[in-house]
Amino acid sequence: MQWAERYEQLLPKFKAQNKTALAKMISLLEDNYLQTWEIISRLHSDIQPKNSYVIGVTGSPGVGKSSFISRLVSFYSNKGQNIGIILIDPSSPFSGGAFLGDRVRMFDLTNSSNVYIRSIASRGAMGGVCNSIYDIIDVMKAFGFDTIIIETVGTGQSEIDIFYACDTTLLILSPDSGDEIQIYKAGIMEIADFYIVNKIDLPNSKRFLMYLENYLGSQNEDHKKVFGVSSIENKGFEKVYEWLESSREYFQNSNLKENLRKKSRVKNYLFHLIENFLEDYPLENQDTDSLKKDVIAFMCKKEGNNGNQN
Amino acid sequence: MQWAERYEQLLPKFKAQNKTALAKMISLLEDNYLQTWEIISRLHSDIQPKNSYVIGVTGSPGVGKSSFISRLVSFYSNKGQNIGIILIDPSSPFSGGAFLGDRVRMFDLTNSSNVYIRSIASRGAMGGVCNSIYDIIDVMKAFGFDTIIIETVGTGQSEIDIFYACDTTLLILSPDSGDEIQIYKAGIMEIADFYIVNKIDLPNSKRFLMYLENYLGSQNEDHKKVFGVSSIENKGFEKVYEWLESSREYFQNSNLKENLRKKSRVKNYLFHLIENFLEDYPLENQDTDSLKKDVIAFMCKKEGNNGNQN
Repeated sequence: MQWAERYEQLLPKFKAQNKTALAKMISLLEDNYLQTWEIISRLHSDIQPKNSYVIGVTGSPGVGKSSFISRLVSFYSNKGQNIGIILIDPSSPFSGGAFLGDRVRMFDLTNSSNVYIRSIASRGAMGGVCNSIYDIIDVMKAFGFDTIIIETVGTGQSEIDIFYACDTTLLILSPDSGDEIQIYKAGIMEIADFYIVNKIDLPNSKRFLMYLENYLGSQNEDHKKVFGVSSIENKGFEKVYEWLESSREYFQNSNLKENLRKKSRVKNYLFHLIENFLEDYPLENQDTDSLKKDVIAFMCKKEGNNGNQN
Repeated sequence: MQWAERYEQLLPKFKAQNKTALAKMISLLEDNYLQTWEIISRLHSDIQPKNSYVIGVTGSPGVGKSSFISRLVSFYSNKGQNIGIILIDPSSPFSGGAFLGDRVRMFDLTNSSNVYIRSIASRGAMGGVCNSIYDIIDVMKAFGFDTIIIETVGTGQSEIDIFYACDTTLLILSPDSGDEIQIYKAGIMEIADFYIVNKIDLPNSKRFLMYLENYLGSQNEDHKKVFGVSSIENKGFEKVYEWLESSREYFQNSNLKENLRKKSRVKNYLFHLIENFLEDYPLENQDTDSLKKDVIAFMCKKEGNNGNQN
């Protein structure tokens, strides 16, 4: 039981708020994906997880998500909160993770003692879904962050997983992104709980704000809010912070997403299992039918004899 | 065995090249996802599938994929080929399939007797992967199309599935799309076997073509070709057609993707199985652990007693 030994070694430092131990605990999960559920379950019995507020930040590339988060987190940090940040890298299986470097550099927060940044790539050749998002959130809750912020780069599928995993979701929009129409078409407007118009220093921002408020007003939904900010001029973050804090309990206690989240979590775990099995599978002259049977046999063996009756 | 009856009813018309029967055969698969493999296997023993050439067409939104395909297919059609087209709709689970309508209208090919268009949505609430792409290709091969063209809208994940499913992949680029940089970052350049610069009627197209050829030249890969076309002026399609036809056998006989395709197919089928099971699952006061066990039990039961020895 190699993972259990590593876990026991890490635990005291993890409890002592050591960030290297936090990073290693996440890596432990990634290295032992077959034991994910056991590790999380052990962790949450050893340490009462904090009821952290999980905020998703999404939006098209180029709207300024990273600079927005950077400003917001400075604000939170100054208020004494501990913040965990998860950056989801949509790196293609072909180009690798080059994209992430750009974003990490945008954060000058890494030196702040109460901020932790973890970047995860939506993995490898066999799939793009970010499988481990729920696990990382669980580890971060055990570590005791007040707030956890998850950033994705605004392409379809990852949005939906974020929506399930987060208590609330912010959509960042920019008057100069030129993709308003795409946004409406792709339907990512619907997943957000509130909207940040970044770059309100730009001349055409007022018109864009009005347009957006009209659109959302006509949708007539509760709890849909619009805020204008400028990351460059560091304006508007107080209001965003206040609204987030005042609605913290509302979103945390909302059970709307509970069932979706359970299903999403199970689905992600099983997909992860299948992808990893297939990735390592030495495929030689085998037809798809035998391959399918091998995957199923593996899953039944892996999950079947684990206290399961019938 | 309701599917078997419907199948027997459809088969004679399907064999007689009736397009309504083709549409219904695809729907039969969609309605009976648990029997997908049996149906395909039956179909391919009843009709020898054609060795159709499967061409993927991808690129960012707005580069003109639909008008490109429309022109190319007219060209193929005039040469006497039968063409099947699959449009993949990236509709979000929230906004539904509004996007697809726009694209279908762009094709004025539906009246052509040797062209068939099928649109499929990347399904429902639980996932965005297009699960049934392999099955639809199989049905179309049985129907006897010379060439099958698959169009996606150029967002990350679907590109990769296209890459596996198709014999060759075309990336459409446009000098005015303004997303050259995004393309390089996202790495979709790497999946294409050749490149179409659409809108060469635009003034800045020459510079863009040179830039692209330089980029690809420095990559020093074989079989990477660049073509310029103008859908508006109906120029350049002869060359694309000639290259596609001359390399047809090369790409069909290339075994490079064979293992990836097998894995991808099995993965897609299993994901489909899991998603559909979860979607319909009445989740009441159940924890994720029992949910997971239920999914596994379903899979083992479904796939385990099908001639599988231990």
